[in-house]
Amino acid sequence: MNMILLHPSDFHDPGLAVLSDERARHICQVLKAAPGKVLRIGLLNGSLGKGTVLSVDQQTVCLQCVLEEQVPPKPKIDLLLAMPRPKVMKRLWAQLAALGVGRIVLVKADKVERFYFDTHVLEPDFYNARLIEGLQQARCTHLPEVLVRKRFKPFIEDELDVLFPNALKLLADPAGERRLGDFSWGERRVLLAIGPEGGWTAYELEQLQEHGFELFGMGERILRTDTACVGLLSTLAEALNHG
Amino acid sequence: MNMILLHPSDFHDPGLAVLSDERARHICQVLKAAPGKVLRIGLLNGSLGKGTVLSVDQQTVCLQCVLEEQVPPKPKIDLLLAMPRPKVMKRLWAQLAALGVGRIVLVKADKVERFYFDTHVLEPDFYNARLIEGLQQARCTHLPEVLVRKRFKPFIEDELDVLFPNALKLLADPAGERRLGDFSWGERRVLLAIGPEGGWTAYELEQLQEHGFELFGMGERILRTDTACVGLLSTLAEALNHG
Repeated sequence: MNMILLHPSDFHDPGLAVLSDERARHICQVLKAAPGKVLRIGLLNGSLGKGTVLSVDQQTVCLQCVLEEQVPPKPKIDLLLAMPRPKVMKRLWAQLAALGVGRIVLVKADKVERFYFDTHVLEPDFYNARLIEGLQQARCTHLPEVLVRKRFKPFIEDELDVLFPNALKLLADPAGERRLGDFSWGERRVLLAIGPEGGWTAYELEQLQEHGFELFGMGERILRTDTACVGLLSTLAEALNHG
Repeated sequence: MNMILLHPSDFHDPGLAVLSDERARHICQVLKAAPGKVLRIGLLNGSLGKGTVLSVDQQTVCLQCVLEEQVPPKPKIDLLLAMPRPKVMKRLWAQLAALGVGRIVLVKADKVERFYFDTHVLEPDFYNARLIEGLQQARCTHLPEVLVRKRFKPFIEDELDVLFPNALKLLADPAGERRLGDFSWGERRVLLAIGPEGGWTAYELEQLQEHGFELFGMGERILRTDTACVGLLSTLAEALNHG
């Protein structure tokens, strides 16, 4: 935990946050913070800042908080991900939040087993805790928005254009001849699509391309979903910020 | 498993491989391959090819193998990694092999606990199995070479320059003002250094820079070792191949 992420409901008075959950335990037992200690804080979907420990006991920590005026920019990348096996998705949440993603859409595809969706890993309480873990690791405040869509076709036909109206839509595919560096995005958001382990079907690829997705190649290596997600998001962020 | 990796010892006659281990089980039970089926194969540290199933029973699979003449190029990136927690390293092996690394040096650093080295995760039988799993996933044949060094100073002073004589040495550090895209590497190999979760000490940073490491920045996010490894290796591979 490289930052303590605060919720508006943690504030009893303006500038005074009172914590009595896992974060309090972390401040006491891991950081061993005594009164006077200054910690990095952030407000959920808001700005970063400093929190001075006012008091600590076993259950409760009081922090005097000063937040910066400027809110860090929201991540410019969104992710359309064919739902991976729950075990893989469980590990991915924190990494996605740490790397910075605005919105995560988990979608069914032909080569996604239906039972992948029957998992506690897709319950908001579960994934929000993991996402917040990732934000606290990376010192970011923007909680990714999560959408779960168990039907591919209605999502692509009815929702995709509404949710991502002006995005540059990119799809990693072995057939892609262009590379990430070949695209110009200007100020547009980027929506990155990552398929299932077995790949999208020809029909799905056609649908995605009809709805604006452009193919790009990433070399010949076939990567596991989690490796591909982390690798592509990192490469894309570097290209977006310093292309 | 997107490729069956063969060892020279699997060949009884030239062109005839006989398998009776986990690979045979995979070919029977997962791929459900019958005689005549053509599988992608690769020779350890050699070329890719095709293997035609000649016979299958519960224990043994015979493959008629045809290998390509050309051996794929060896990955151009090496990794100097401060030993992470064993749990993290356990998950990293396959991903490192899948992403493509020539040589992996695991080194002690001040903020690496000594007991991290007392683990089965660093036994060759364990890590080679994981590395081969990654190669078979990514369809690559080059098995990374692994070195474990429990003392930082002797490694840096006595071995580093010998092992990596002409490499461009890069070190991810928040203080780095240059970005990956700012370096030119030509035909040189790249040695990428990734520090412990708590960072290198000032002394370690000084030593590394004295031995030719150049700093580069990757943004303000603080990433877990495994996320950082996968992200940096991907970004670097993309820059190397298409910069």
